[in-house]
Amino acid sequence: MTRSDIDGAALKYAAGGGLLSRRMLLASAAAGTAAGLALPKAARAEAKIPEWSKTAGARARGYGMPAAAESAVQRAIIEPWQDVAPAFSLSGTPHHRLRGTITPSGLHFEVHHGGRPDIDPARHRLMLHGLVERPLQFSLEALERYPMVTATHFLECAGNSLFNAVMPEPMQAGCDMLHGLLSNTEWTGIPMRVLMEEAGVRPEGKWVVAAGADGPSLARSIPMEKLMSDGMLALYQNGERLRPEQGYPMRLLLPGFEGNMNIKWLTSLWVTEAPVHTKDESGEYTEILADGSSVQFTFAMGVKSFITHPSSTMTMSGPGFYEISGLAWTGAGKVAKVEVSADGGQSWAEAALAGPVRPQALTRFSLPWHWDGSPLVLMSRATDETGAVQPARADWKARYHASNFLHYNAIQPWQITAEGAVQNVYL
Amino acid sequence: MTRSDIDGAALKYAAGGGLLSRRMLLASAAAGTAAGLALPKAARAEAKIPEWSKTAGARARGYGMPAAAESAVQRAIIEPWQDVAPAFSLSGTPHHRLRGTITPSGLHFEVHHGGRPDIDPARHRLMLHGLVERPLQFSLEALERYPMVTATHFLECAGNSLFNAVMPEPMQAGCDMLHGLLSNTEWTGIPMRVLMEEAGVRPEGKWVVAAGADGPSLARSIPMEKLMSDGMLALYQNGERLRPEQGYPMRLLLPGFEGNMNIKWLTSLWVTEAPVHTKDESGEYTEILADGSSVQFTFAMGVKSFITHPSSTMTMSGPGFYEISGLAWTGAGKVAKVEVSADGGQSWAEAALAGPVRPQALTRFSLPWHWDGSPLVLMSRATDETGAVQPARADWKARYHASNFLHYNAIQPWQITAEGAVQNVYL
Repeated sequence: MTRSDIDGAALKYAAGGGLLSRRMLLASAAAGTAAGLALPKAARAEAKIPEWSKTAGARARGYGMPAAAESAVQRAIIEPWQDVAPAFSLSGTPHHRLRGTITPSGLHFEVHHGGRPDIDPARHRLMLHGLVERPLQFSLEALERYPMVTATHFLECAGNSLFNAVMPEPMQAGCDMLHGLLSNTEWTGIPMRVLMEEAGVRPEGKWVVAAGADGPSLARSIPMEKLMSDGMLALYQNGERLRPEQGYPMRLLLPGFEGNMNIKWLTSLWVTEAPVHTKDESGEYTEILADGSSVQFTFAMGVKSFITHPSSTMTMSGPGFYEISGLAWTGAGKVAKVEVSADGGQSWAEAALAGPVRPQALTRFSLPWHWDGSPLVLMSRATDETGAVQPARADWKARYHASNFLHYNAIQPWQITAEGAVQNVYL
Repeated sequence: MTRSDIDGAALKYAAGGGLLSRRMLLASAAAGTAAGLALPKAARAEAKIPEWSKTAGARARGYGMPAAAESAVQRAIIEPWQDVAPAFSLSGTPHHRLRGTITPSGLHFEVHHGGRPDIDPARHRLMLHGLVERPLQFSLEALERYPMVTATHFLECAGNSLFNAVMPEPMQAGCDMLHGLLSNTEWTGIPMRVLMEEAGVRPEGKWVVAAGADGPSLARSIPMEKLMSDGMLALYQNGERLRPEQGYPMRLLLPGFEGNMNIKWLTSLWVTEAPVHTKDESGEYTEILADGSSVQFTFAMGVKSFITHPSSTMTMSGPGFYEISGLAWTGAGKVAKVEVSADGGQSWAEAALAGPVRPQALTRFSLPWHWDGSPLVLMSRATDETGAVQPARADWKARYHASNFLHYNAIQPWQITAEGAVQNVYL
């Protein structure tokens, strides 16, 4: 028999639609035979030995790349407005093709307002000036002697999931297009507090205007309090130097804050008394509420989650046992709980969280599931340690003006059809 | 003044040679002004705006790569014995050019006995046979429905640091050549226990012979107990599919065990009563003791550490403040403590460990240091949670035959000369 021939009656259900107890997964054996699940019976081994087992393979190379068969695993690139904003682009991480929690640096999302500058690291400088006792200028070489810290954090664009926010009908696309402006990597760099204390911030210095070396000189006003608590001057990502897309040779990292504030190609930190309302924080990256007023400011990303396996554009390989797997995060700290529904929200079961659950980092959740082949709607709902809960789309829409696409964090429902198609739906 | 003009007398010393209390680092501010360290005074900003800030940059790309200026950051490749072992190679991770704990997949070390096979994932099969109730064969597609787990673990070749083990005089080379057969990544895959329980292991099945699809059919005998406790069929590395060098499309992962046992391109799991003494475990990968006898077997890697910053081939940029940083690990579980000496082992200070400290994973340690410019010897010494302590080279050599280069885990001393050169030495 195969996984599609399961006696559902033998299973321990946790909620409607075939959701099974997460304990079945936590005890790994339980997901196999102990849970009465029959897994695929073997065919006989191929008699023929493949050609790659009969010869010596390729010689070693200095830097490895993904297999040729994986060449379709790329960022999904959108390049609107080239006539008014040359090289403006959105590039989404293909979460439906990835597993685990670390995003490979080559697939980390990008949003560029003026493309990817080609910076000579030997000539790049970071200035720290304004309301400080000692204005400072740093070269990359000088920074190498500073104390460094390492932490894993997500970055999410304030405009992530914008199509679900503004399109009247749900867009049929993969997680790269729908939720791809989100990634999670290990960052290493210098605590911003060390640099600020070296410069000697004056008592009236309560904000810092951070600016990048890109053409548009993207700039944002940042509360001094955030920089002093956990702000980082990031120099390394996943162990190696930042990649050009991620701000080489240096970027600002503000754990949990909207991606746009984590200034790439950082070249200036200007200490001020108050925010200066740059085009990037007043013109763009400001939400408009239902009554037409604007929000000043929304820095931390809200609690959010979505199911990556299965997800839209995928096709189910028949009824039977599956593992539902997805990602959850919050700008407020740690994810406390993720619930999954397989009956459109009528009943919920708590998913298992893969530890260690870290603050401002993606957390992988999973739950075993027996799909009986009938149509249903899967969804996940995250709760963070502050008690904040991911809202339904209607509740989120009611708060904002119809044109707002920023800070969308509503629940993502996936419709499973009787044919096994997985589709994006609004509920 | 600059970092090279420090009044050493103002500092809180933890041990000889200028080692400072790790608390100075843990309180990030302390590494700056509060510790009395004056960090580099600013020059005036360049009046000239660099060309990359005046134009739109490059368009987005589907898969990112390191900056051109970082093209020297590569694996160090050694290819001995090509006449008898085509495509045999050792490729070391350049730890002296990396920071943090995650190794980028492109720089993960490799040891290939017959090169890198070019496998068609659609045709690759894994057989599970021998002393089981139900022989099974798995395709990559079928495995995608199985429950998966994610964990970060180091891999270390049993022959890592072989030059220090056997060369009469210390080789002057970087950490890529000296200790590069070691890496650390996030792995995602199926618990081996789930597959074994599905096949139904017979009571007499106590060992598993794992074999790869590479030309030499590298094969090792593995205790069933290890597979059932934390063995993983790894399908993803740092979020994406395994790279060809790391066993695409699937490899065995045995946390803490010598790299050679973590069979790449895994194609066969043969359940047996006893080890079968393959060429790879009896001919190679067996240590010879001082009395000429052989060890059967040494699976777990010993407790070990080395300083990456500063390290051999580097040059100090003058006296003053530095952060000593390095890596520690053990196959036995978690690193409990790392001590650092700056006076050739006369005195030691405990380093700070970057958390979370995970079992069978690289742990980054660091300690602030004030170098007064005089010659001295830096070294690190790790202790693991079982109480095992990294040995001195002489003690390690005394245990083994002069020809043995396997499982070398001795302390690595770095000589700092008055000119600021950092050199490999034996102590």
